[in-house]
Amino acid sequence: MTDTSTSSYAGLQSLIWAGDKLELLDQRLLPEETVYLPLTTAEEVWESIRHMKVRGAPAIGIAAAYGLVLGTAGAGGEGSDQEAWLAEVERVADYLATSRPTAVNLFWALDRMKAKAASAAGSGLSLEACQKALLEEAIAIQSEDEETNRLIGEYALELMKDGMGVLTHCNAGGLATAKYGTALAPFYLAQERGISLKVFADETRPVLQGARLTAFELQQAGVDVTLICDNMAGMVMSKGWVQAVIVGTDRVAANGDVANKIGTYSVAVLAKAHGIPFYVACPMSTIDLQTPTGDLIPIEERSPEEVTEAFGKRTAPHGVKVFNPAFDVTPAEYVTAIITEKGVVKAPYDVNLKKLFEL
Amino acid sequence: MTDTSTSSYAGLQSLIWAGDKLELLDQRLLPEETVYLPLTTAEEVWESIRHMKVRGAPAIGIAAAYGLVLGTAGAGGEGSDQEAWLAEVERVADYLATSRPTAVNLFWALDRMKAKAASAAGSGLSLEACQKALLEEAIAIQSEDEETNRLIGEYALELMKDGMGVLTHCNAGGLATAKYGTALAPFYLAQERGISLKVFADETRPVLQGARLTAFELQQAGVDVTLICDNMAGMVMSKGWVQAVIVGTDRVAANGDVANKIGTYSVAVLAKAHGIPFYVACPMSTIDLQTPTGDLIPIEERSPEEVTEAFGKRTAPHGVKVFNPAFDVTPAEYVTAIITEKGVVKAPYDVNLKKLFEL
Repeated sequence: MTDTSTSSYAGLQSLIWAGDKLELLDQRLLPEETVYLPLTTAEEVWESIRHMKVRGAPAIGIAAAYGLVLGTAGAGGEGSDQEAWLAEVERVADYLATSRPTAVNLFWALDRMKAKAASAAGSGLSLEACQKALLEEAIAIQSEDEETNRLIGEYALELMKDGMGVLTHCNAGGLATAKYGTALAPFYLAQERGISLKVFADETRPVLQGARLTAFELQQAGVDVTLICDNMAGMVMSKGWVQAVIVGTDRVAANGDVANKIGTYSVAVLAKAHGIPFYVACPMSTIDLQTPTGDLIPIEERSPEEVTEAFGKRTAPHGVKVFNPAFDVTPAEYVTAIITEKGVVKAPYDVNLKKLFEL
Repeated sequence: MTDTSTSSYAGLQSLIWAGDKLELLDQRLLPEETVYLPLTTAEEVWESIRHMKVRGAPAIGIAAAYGLVLGTAGAGGEGSDQEAWLAEVERVADYLATSRPTAVNLFWALDRMKAKAASAAGSGLSLEACQKALLEEAIAIQSEDEETNRLIGEYALELMKDGMGVLTHCNAGGLATAKYGTALAPFYLAQERGISLKVFADETRPVLQGARLTAFELQQAGVDVTLICDNMAGMVMSKGWVQAVIVGTDRVAANGDVANKIGTYSVAVLAKAHGIPFYVACPMSTIDLQTPTGDLIPIEERSPEEVTEAFGKRTAPHGVKVFNPAFDVTPAEYVTAIITEKGVVKAPYDVNLKKLFEL
């Protein structure tokens, strides 16, 4: 694994393990306030995921992994045995899995943690050692994510050229991951290497992750970023200002359909209409071969208030009907390539995604 | 002209002439507050147009017409003559024309008012009578707009069927006009006649005219309206919930290119990709045969703060670059039909729009 401690990554850390608690950056307060919440229970982690204090598929997975550590810390007490501890691991993992339905990394991270727990308990370790193994696995998930994202950034950057305009939607940046991000990783690498890219960030209603997070973290890093409203993407494309679109994803189905933040599908259709490649950047853990097609991915609907009074001010009539899906599904036919830490995959996705797991 | 005084239109009036002042509904405060501003000078009208207290192409034209009346009321004083009065009419009209650049109805209304002034002065009327003729012309522009919109609604409704889903963007409703609106007129007529339409209203960032105005006025009238964020339009279409899109416009070029609120172009591209007809509803006064193509229509760019702190709260980092065009241009090839008070026009627009003026 590359030593990234000397990296020039200037972004904020979304998650910091602090020995006995998870210091979690409250992303709802950005960019105006930088507040780390000290989380000490699985319930606090669940609540932070549900209410999007932490968001972004990889970051949700990491948070859940630490949540499982916190939630089982008391389970190895006196009179307890490995079996009881494992049952508690299962119970807490099942509970954390209910925090949000769409991002597969959540389930992937919890499955990996459960497997670690089973192997630790099965090899006869003490409960203390089992608990320690669980923590080490969470730390590994976090540090591997950082390396994964650097690799994704390298592959993505090969698809970009100096001077290009690139549009992104939502936030698949350092704040959505351990570091670097997925879709934003090439921008950080380009910046390190003096390659000039002009980034357009969709503000991404209703929660404005593009305005509050993407514009913020890229600006902090000195990347040339221009904020637009979601409905301006078509105009910006028609002006010839964009040569590529890159987004993250919460789950890729086996056929290459991509679930991502609401609005991604509209961007993909617009990109296709303008002959602009549409790239999806994600770690392997986001690819879900168990879900055959995108229409089987559960799409979370969130509260109407996110739309009608998102920023403390009522901006729609009381009682109005609202449709507020948190995600949409972009069919594989709109996806030019999927960029992972193992390389770049193109259609036919049903064949090529499977191959990627065999590498 | 049809007597519409018995109409069941339940919407708010955007503009009320009150004898010596223009009572103008401050649309920036809707839907939470209903405040009428008493405007007594051309400067106040200019400022109200510029700051979007009144918006919508037809309503801007009507406001400007009354603004000209208010701005010239003192010009017929002692020692003044017809020539001086006419010069003052020209000066105030030129000033009002600088309030916003895109909506052609503004210039159309002012031209019509100047022509009336010239004919009144030329026919030897007293200055008092000239001023009265000017006021009567403003009142005529307003009342004709109401009748125009009913006719547009009739033609538009013929393109819709009971049970259909219809998506609209921004606000081309009663609030954007004297009454009824253009794009929303068929919804009011359908409601009067027991025809059930399911309307999806794009919230329309950055100023949220869809959330604050369209959802509000349709809800008030009992129309089935569902509010969505702009970036959800693609998903709603992909679900098969929308069988038509209808929007207003600020200016139609001679070739059928349509300038309208930013985001309209994205909606048009999405509609085409889903095989959904895309209709534009407008009075004849919005069609500008003097502008050959859409790329010649001046597109107003507005302040970054509309995007970064629209909700009274800062939602983007300070100093971030913002692109904030108020309008975009939808090329004629995306426009299924243009619906006017004289009937429905289809491509080839360069020929058929011209014919419409010969009817």
